[in-house]
Amino acid sequence: MAGPWSVSEPRRANLTPDVDLASRMFDELRANSTDGLGVTRDAYGPGERMAHALARREAEALGLEVKADPVGNLYMTLPGNDRAAPQVLLGSHLDSVKEGGNFDGAAGVLAGLAAVAGLKRAGFRPARDITVIATRAEEAGAWFPTSYPGSRGALGMLKAAELQVKRQDTGRSLADHMREEGFDPGFAERGETVLTPANTAAFLELHIEQGPVLDAEQVPVAVVTGIPGSRRLRQGRVVGEYNHSGGTPRRFRRDAAIALAEFALGLDEEWARLEAHGHRLVCTFCTMATTAEAGFTKIAGEATFMLDVRAVNPASVDAVFARLAELVPEIEARRGVRFELGPETGSLASPMDAGVRAGLARAAAAAGVGCIEMASGGGHDAAAFAAAGIPSGMLFVRNQNGSHNPHEAMRMEDFSAACAVVTQWLTEAAG
Amino acid sequence: MAGPWSVSEPRRANLTPDVDLASRMFDELRANSTDGLGVTRDAYGPGERMAHALARREAEALGLEVKADPVGNLYMTLPGNDRAAPQVLLGSHLDSVKEGGNFDGAAGVLAGLAAVAGLKRAGFRPARDITVIATRAEEAGAWFPTSYPGSRGALGMLKAAELQVKRQDTGRSLADHMREEGFDPGFAERGETVLTPANTAAFLELHIEQGPVLDAEQVPVAVVTGIPGSRRLRQGRVVGEYNHSGGTPRRFRRDAAIALAEFALGLDEEWARLEAHGHRLVCTFCTMATTAEAGFTKIAGEATFMLDVRAVNPASVDAVFARLAELVPEIEARRGVRFELGPETGSLASPMDAGVRAGLARAAAAAGVGCIEMASGGGHDAAAFAAAGIPSGMLFVRNQNGSHNPHEAMRMEDFSAACAVVTQWLTEAAG
Repeated sequence: MAGPWSVSEPRRANLTPDVDLASRMFDELRANSTDGLGVTRDAYGPGERMAHALARREAEALGLEVKADPVGNLYMTLPGNDRAAPQVLLGSHLDSVKEGGNFDGAAGVLAGLAAVAGLKRAGFRPARDITVIATRAEEAGAWFPTSYPGSRGALGMLKAAELQVKRQDTGRSLADHMREEGFDPGFAERGETVLTPANTAAFLELHIEQGPVLDAEQVPVAVVTGIPGSRRLRQGRVVGEYNHSGGTPRRFRRDAAIALAEFALGLDEEWARLEAHGHRLVCTFCTMATTAEAGFTKIAGEATFMLDVRAVNPASVDAVFARLAELVPEIEARRGVRFELGPETGSLASPMDAGVRAGLARAAAAAGVGCIEMASGGGHDAAAFAAAGIPSGMLFVRNQNGSHNPHEAMRMEDFSAACAVVTQWLTEAAG
Repeated sequence: MAGPWSVSEPRRANLTPDVDLASRMFDELRANSTDGLGVTRDAYGPGERMAHALARREAEALGLEVKADPVGNLYMTLPGNDRAAPQVLLGSHLDSVKEGGNFDGAAGVLAGLAAVAGLKRAGFRPARDITVIATRAEEAGAWFPTSYPGSRGALGMLKAAELQVKRQDTGRSLADHMREEGFDPGFAERGETVLTPANTAAFLELHIEQGPVLDAEQVPVAVVTGIPGSRRLRQGRVVGEYNHSGGTPRRFRRDAAIALAEFALGLDEEWARLEAHGHRLVCTFCTMATTAEAGFTKIAGEATFMLDVRAVNPASVDAVFARLAELVPEIEARRGVRFELGPETGSLASPMDAGVRAGLARAAAAAGVGCIEMASGGGHDAAAFAAAGIPSGMLFVRNQNGSHNPHEAMRMEDFSAACAVVTQWLTEAAG
């Protein structure tokens, strides 16, 4: 096989990532954040502070240049020959959900340090700076009701109002928490930026897959095609009429439960149809429930639901909502109920950069690591970098038992393979 | 039109039921049991005691023979020429659910008194005793977890263990409540009987319909074909697997919510199919719900449901459960979930006596009251009388807004028409 990656063959033996370093750091992170069930590293709190201090200590021990930005993201830089050239950035977050796993987020930071340590040990001098970033508060959903405040704070995308959202367990604002950790929320309020397309050539986020695909496909890594956008109904309701389950014949019923069942199954069938036509999406009724007034011998007069539809291609999400718009009046007419869809929320899809994707595929081939392409399921900091115009990519590592739970697992051999891909990619991207 | 009812024509003008009496009693019952929203007449408690005292007072004022049996049912008798002949019995209950309506139950007792008062006023002397019965605790579901303890206590069908069930609000047993009201639970424990096929020729229960059929059909009364039996799953569960809604593709899901939706809709479609083939039944998912662990961005790993299937013809209920037995393994295989149906409960259907039904149809025709036949939706004391082998029938009166709620309504003109049918029926049944 000919191609640009053939030149990297001689380097491979020397440029071995320092997976032992990452392994020691995983163990120390876990020991310092165990909560009895899993790990808890609270965003802009003691758990995340511990993890950032650990990363800083190891980066300093490696001789990297280390600094934090005004909103708390940590930068650990292997200087390049041209310090003025746009840097190559890689990393992820160090916080976790409550009772989460040890690898979600941390794997991306530790892979960056392992790769850079390997390069440094081998005497590799990059053409441009390689910076490992540990972002802040990526698991915002579990702590603050806002998305990616750390990375978006560095990218000038965090809005002033978002600094006032309250951390759900402490009741104190994001701005308060930033200040308590020694940072400056005013930086974000003023819209200042640390990271721009002008100073950052590319961003790579390595992350555990969080799903079962790589395990099922028996492949250790995947190049991510994009981070899905979503359309969401979090407060959907079906309103019918409570009636006696014995005394009310079929034709007089306004049954909210069965109307919701028909609605949910109708969208599920649409999902199956779209998938058969090549669409890639997920469509989930996260909750479906009759309400407290329901009970035995009653026909349900009300039911609620939460709907979450995601795809990298917005057309796939819109196709589900087009079917929804047909189904609602049909079911309303047929079953005498009324749908109240409530406010729609959502996010834009973030396709990953074609150049970064191609580079990762080349790197995997060069490193001899089996690799497929797949869409991300969850959101990641890479979505914010992509939105800011920085060419961004993600590398998924095979993991077991999902994520955001204490059973989350990842084999170190897969992590090691992924680190080899990252190292290989860095030699091209910053070489 | 020729037939046996033509002989009653000359009597009609004279045998007018005393609807004014019933009307005054409805008003007094309502005034004495209002709870701010509707009426509450608690079984074997002050509410029911008040209603029985009122009925006794009015019956005594009418000159009827009045007595209570050892479990508290009240008998108000217009003596017949042959005191030894099996009596004709009619009535219903005087208790109510919490925040219920004024007519559910009471209409049957007051119709009996109105009819008997009319007969007495006209000097009608029946061939056999006509006894108006006010049963106890028919709304057991709302107070004690047992069915028809009053009528079944008089019929020798109340089991000793049932006397120990606790009233849900007081925590005291049915036997304790009977004793506190001055009655003797030992009578029921010993299996003694007040009412038997030997001493009771027929039982008629007039009751509000509790459903919308008569109102929709614009007919004031219905002869009830039977009281449905049921098969019920009160603790059904679907067990799947919680997973990330974004990260878990369709083929890896074990979604309990969508499996339950498919199950519910499948049985609903079976119901529609059976109905199209002439079956008469109801099939209700009274509750359907993902559990507390469900939430946004999760695939539901568990869902629960309550299923209530009823029909007068057991074959119709069994047909639904036959389809259920097909659907469960299909959905389990297709969606990777497991159904736990839990314990099945239920009751036998009680067809109403053909002779009583025919007599009621004749009486309606003779009284010039529009009448259809229909199955009951809910259960009634008449089911216990039928189970004891006493020829039993029911006459439904058109009502509005269902029952067991404060909005329950009934027009006095419909009640008056129903009383005319009852009076006419009595002249034949006891004449």
